[in-house]
Amino acid sequence: MLEALKQQVFEQNMELPKRGLVTYTWGNVSGFDNETGYFVIKPSGIDYDVLKPEDMVVMDLEGNKIEGKYKPSSDTPTHIELYKAFKVGGVVHTHSPWATSWAQAGRSIPCYGTTHADYFYGPVPCARSLTAEEISEAYEKNTGLVIVETFKDLNPDYVQAVLCTNHGTFTWGKDADEAVHNAVVLEEVAKMACRTEMIRPDVKPAPDVIKEKHFMRKHGANAYYGQI
Amino acid sequence: MLEALKQQVFEQNMELPKRGLVTYTWGNVSGFDNETGYFVIKPSGIDYDVLKPEDMVVMDLEGNKIEGKYKPSSDTPTHIELYKAFKVGGVVHTHSPWATSWAQAGRSIPCYGTTHADYFYGPVPCARSLTAEEISEAYEKNTGLVIVETFKDLNPDYVQAVLCTNHGTFTWGKDADEAVHNAVVLEEVAKMACRTEMIRPDVKPAPDVIKEKHFMRKHGANAYYGQI
Amino acid sequence: MLEALKQQVFEQNMELPKRGLVTYTWGNVSGFDNETGYFVIKPSGIDYDVLKPEDMVVMDLEGNKIEGKYKPSSDTPTHIELYKAFKVGGVVHTHSPWATSWAQAGRSIPCYGTTHADYFYGPVPCARSLTAEEISEAYEKNTGLVIVETFKDLNPDYVQAVLCTNHGTFTWGKDADEAVHNAVVLEEVAKMACRTEMIRPDVKPAPDVIKEKHFMRKHGANAYYGQI
Amino acid sequence: MLEALKQQVFEQNMELPKRGLVTYTWGNVSGFDNETGYFVIKPSGIDYDVLKPEDMVVMDLEGNKIEGKYKPSSDTPTHIELYKAFKVGGVVHTHSPWATSWAQAGRSIPCYGTTHADYFYGPVPCARSLTAEEISEAYEKNTGLVIVETFKDLNPDYVQAVLCTNHGTFTWGKDADEAVHNAVVLEEVAKMACRTEMIRPDVKPAPDVIKEKHFMRKHGANAYYGQI
Repeated sequence: MLEALKQQVFEQNMELPKRGLVTYTWGNVSGFDNETGYFVIKPSGIDYDVLKPEDMVVMDLEGNKIEGKYKPSSDTPTHIELYKAFKVGGVVHTHSPWATSWAQAGRSIPCYGTTHADYFYGPVPCARSLTAEEISEAYEKNTGLVIVETFKDLNPDYVQAVLCTNHGTFTWGKDADEAVHNAVVLEEVAKMACRTEMIRPDVKPAPDVIKEKHFMRKHGANAYYGQI
Repeated sequence: MLEALKQQVFEQNMELPKRGLVTYTWGNVSGFDNETGYFVIKPSGIDYDVLKPEDMVVMDLEGNKIEGKYKPSSDTPTHIELYKAFKVGGVVHTHSPWATSWAQAGRSIPCYGTTHADYFYGPVPCARSLTAEEISEAYEKNTGLVIVETFKDLNPDYVQAVLCTNHGTFTWGKDADEAVHNAVVLEEVAKMACRTEMIRPDVKPAPDVIKEKHFMRKHGANAYYGQI
Repeated sequence: MLEALKQQVFEQNMELPKRGLVTYTWGNVSGFDNETGYFVIKPSGIDYDVLKPEDMVVMDLEGNKIEGKYKPSSDTPTHIELYKAFKVGGVVHTHSPWATSWAQAGRSIPCYGTTHADYFYGPVPCARSLTAEEISEAYEKNTGLVIVETFKDLNPDYVQAVLCTNHGTFTWGKDADEAVHNAVVLEEVAKMACRTEMIRPDVKPAPDVIKEKHFMRKHGANAYYGQI
Repeated sequence: MLEALKQQVFEQNMELPKRGLVTYTWGNVSGFDNETGYFVIKPSGIDYDVLKPEDMVVMDLEGNKIEGKYKPSSDTPTHIELYKAFKVGGVVHTHSPWATSWAQAGRSIPCYGTTHADYFYGPVPCARSLTAEEISEAYEKNTGLVIVETFKDLNPDYVQAVLCTNHGTFTWGKDADEAVHNAVVLEEVAKMACRTEMIRPDVKPAPDVIKEKHFMRKHGANAYYGQI
């Protein structure tokens, strides 16, 4: 079942090491199917070298395994919360090194320029730490709930990325491809933001007009970037 | 028409990802044809993986599309202003990470050594921010005009590169090849300038004699570098 | 003799340059055989380009060469002390650049996040400097003894890595594969810890609950990461 | 003439881009022939992509071209001074990014650990700036003389590398292979020294016993590293 989606989710999982975003098995991609309400996700802890499309696991939003010989990614409960709250088509988790360094520092990534503004409308927020209770109770599920909490006053279609304190990144999008694309952009933006602060420790974020112009140039009703 | 120029502009566009200067479609190269007064530029938002020489777009300096099935790069109006003011043969735009970090910091790149002086006669300037009016009115065209303003007391043949605050880089040259070459050099120079300041926060720019000697060794009337 | 182990140790030695952990011959991997009590180690100073499985050297824990045409790695006496004290199946030494920079700084690597906590239960300690006497007497053997001293209150199964002041890294594991895996993780963790401090100079280590949760998720009696 | 040496010098020139030490044509390798007293060097400004062994230029120590269709590297007068003063078999010049950043900062590279001490007995010195007169008179020759001046109290067999303020690096060795090897090591050591200072701004150089032990382990009369 869902063979095309499995193929797509497999290919996008393979993008992660190819783009330098993951070491070993430190990442996972899932994609949602609107018809069935199921999603397809990478199995837990399987090497990218031996991963095959048919290894992908089909899950429902209650966390039941619908199909697949392997256990799904241990981050599956986080993916579920993001699908439920954000109504997106793809979710990605990585420990990509630059973005994870911001997450370990517990800082949101300020918007320092148009590379950022082309994709993310405002800072990429850093979700708060989980409490000891939240960790022991249902760690991965609560990770998702704290991300959703972080977006209570933010539009998840306008900032399709988040940092989790002391942990790593989640990105999303209309499908697995866009979610992976956003993961690549996030890493690039995180790298340049760190270097920007090295070059000028007292740098200020880009003015809001940059954010408006660049995000809307690609995403607004009057978008004119690309062949649209 | 302009098949040879299309081929050259295509090849130089492909140099950008090969040299690590662009992620996804974040860059574009154009080349000018003196006979017709037209220039050839990359189409907007097309993946480098599928780009072909025949996809290049032919434009005139009034911004009219002369030939091509695609829309030209959204940065086309900036290229036009540089061709009009600087009378050059090639223009490149990138978000290359080190140089863009300087642009995000709003700082010109000081000349710290001979690698810089071999190519750029003095600091690589950082153009001022556009005003809100300039952004909303004609963003890409005004980006070009602000670059030209930055060079009102500078020789654009001696410093063939600029940073745009909160944005990225433009470089140029006698043709597309030289413009791309300068983009590669700019990124290398930006990287080393940042590290130089890490190693010695109170470092001073190289003395002017270095600038004179090295730039003129390669570019002056008595140049003696290379097989000339 | 020990042909399968030689093959494994050879392959894991080849992982070091492939993973970017060593330049030239600056690293070595060994693996222990429980039946014979011998271990297999890379020969000293042989280029990775020409290394073959049959070049591996078989040693006993008294430092006697049992088989092999080459001299063993000059770090062999350090491997011996680690095998004797920690009862592990594989040992790796590298000068991997990020971790070695921490070793040169004489600092333990704090646990700043889950990437670290997934593998190392607490900071990766930096062993004290050797005294002049320890260096002149039996440098490599004493390097091992100082590592063992560093773990007098630490569980070497829970933190399978150490930094040696002004020198480099040792990692270990249940076999050569796990020891190399830990060397790769250590380098990644060292890189992100340095960047974390760049991004936030006053950053604090991750709370202990993160350490408990993540290490035990993969290693404890109730581990649930991967296909276990 | 000197076909074997041309082949070796060609191959070692090709190592520079392969090892990430040069961009475009920013480096050159030469090798000395004891029998004839001639040396073989890369031609000036020829792309590595099209370089062939027969393009190498044969020179004598008075700066006369003995054979070759191209002009020799513009740095040839520097190579000559090093051959005359240091009696070495190979010389390399690069603008390798980390080492050049130290040169641009005008700082010698302190010995922070055994990676450094295995190759360089003490700091890698940074030669003083040339005066305006030295630059205008005979820039490349005076670059060599200032390097020689830097070693008036140093043994060039014990520290086979130097930084030139605001410029780049020269390394040497018993032949072109060793000189290139030292250029690779210098870049690695420069990278780790910078990161060591990031991790611990008040770090002190490694104690002298480390320098003695490691350099002599590989280079002294009682060397025991490698298959010797």
